[in-house]
Amino acid sequence: MDVGAYLPFWTSLTPAQQEKLAKAAVLRHGTKGQMIHGTGEQCLGLLVIRSGQLRAFILSEEGREITLYRLFERDICLFSASCMLRDIQFDIAVEVERDADFWIIPPDLYRGLMAESAAVANYTNDVMSSRFSEVMWLIEQIMWRSFDQRLAGFLLTEARLEGSLVLPVTHERIADHLGTAREVVTRMLRYFQSEGMVRLARGTVEITDEKRLEALAES
Amino acid sequence: MDVGAYLPFWTSLTPAQQEKLAKAAVLRHGTKGQMIHGTGEQCLGLLVIRSGQLRAFILSEEGREITLYRLFERDICLFSASCMLRDIQFDIAVEVERDADFWIIPPDLYRGLMAESAAVANYTNDVMSSRFSEVMWLIEQIMWRSFDQRLAGFLLTEARLEGSLVLPVTHERIADHLGTAREVVTRMLRYFQSEGMVRLARGTVEITDEKRLEALAES
Repeated sequence: MDVGAYLPFWTSLTPAQQEKLAKAAVLRHGTKGQMIHGTGEQCLGLLVIRSGQLRAFILSEEGREITLYRLFERDICLFSASCMLRDIQFDIAVEVERDADFWIIPPDLYRGLMAESAAVANYTNDVMSSRFSEVMWLIEQIMWRSFDQRLAGFLLTEARLEGSLVLPVTHERIADHLGTAREVVTRMLRYFQSEGMVRLARGTVEITDEKRLEALAES
Repeated sequence: MDVGAYLPFWTSLTPAQQEKLAKAAVLRHGTKGQMIHGTGEQCLGLLVIRSGQLRAFILSEEGREITLYRLFERDICLFSASCMLRDIQFDIAVEVERDADFWIIPPDLYRGLMAESAAVANYTNDVMSSRFSEVMWLIEQIMWRSFDQRLAGFLLTEARLEGSLVLPVTHERIADHLGTAREVVTRMLRYFQSEGMVRLARGTVEITDEKRLEALAES
């Protein structure tokens, strides 16, 4: 399928705009672990996800990470094209979390479409609103939830994404997602294990009491 | 002055759109401490600040607050009209921090203008980008706060070296000292200024609340 099928505003474009966009969009493949866009890098372009899963995160000067949101099929990544948005003064990094196919749309072309078409501009607004909501949710998590609740919530979300209660994830990786140190994660996971909520093995965390974990996450 | 003078997209509206907007916008006055919009409240509308200062913040269930950003003359508050933005799933509160005059624009009317006019939609995008940047900055502060402490310490040291609270130093120079980017310094200094700890002028930074800066540096 063409990139147009992944863009809700496609039918409101003129044939000339459609042709220009279809020609300029480049289909790329990314393999798990690959960095697509680093912080401080050139403005890559808008990403339109055809399949797979990407992760958007920020990185501190000391190399600590925190996951902002995930991108799935039909999602759009705006902030890899932040140069086309005036007043965006932050940088995100994007990596492939599950092998992915995605289109890259050049920022200049997209900016041109936004200026010409209210439908494109409003769609961009919707995407940004939705990312904004995810980031606000993250702030609330960080500010007002204790780490045990955040970790419980994270494990449950991962289990849903993986479709399995056995999560192939290291403590280091969890720490990156939650913006904390590995030791903090290890300590809390051992506590969870002692409470019978998870079982730890090399490279995996298995959820053994989903109900209690849910109760904790929602407490 | 009319509300139109405060809206950058005004001249790109049709006379009919201008008339409709001017008629619908209601001018209000708010006194210091007054809540204009609470979390969980009805969708009030877009706020256009004519004078004064508002504060946008979020509130936890336990009543803890965190300031997201300030709104000054000519700023627009979108999230008091979040019903008009699809995919916004959070609530902010807005209060008057310094006696203010502001217009309220009904959300339905504004949503209609966004749908009709790419200029209005793109302007809305710019406003959201700018708020998004402020919130991202806040996350970084929360997660990795250390630069504010370093900057506070640096300013105090310089004041001692200068024998004066007025420091003849550029943001660029501070960035060089602290091994970071000028933008990072500018942003933090503006934050310090909004908190009343410094006053910025061309080529100088004046410390206006040494005690608080010291408390910050030693925190």
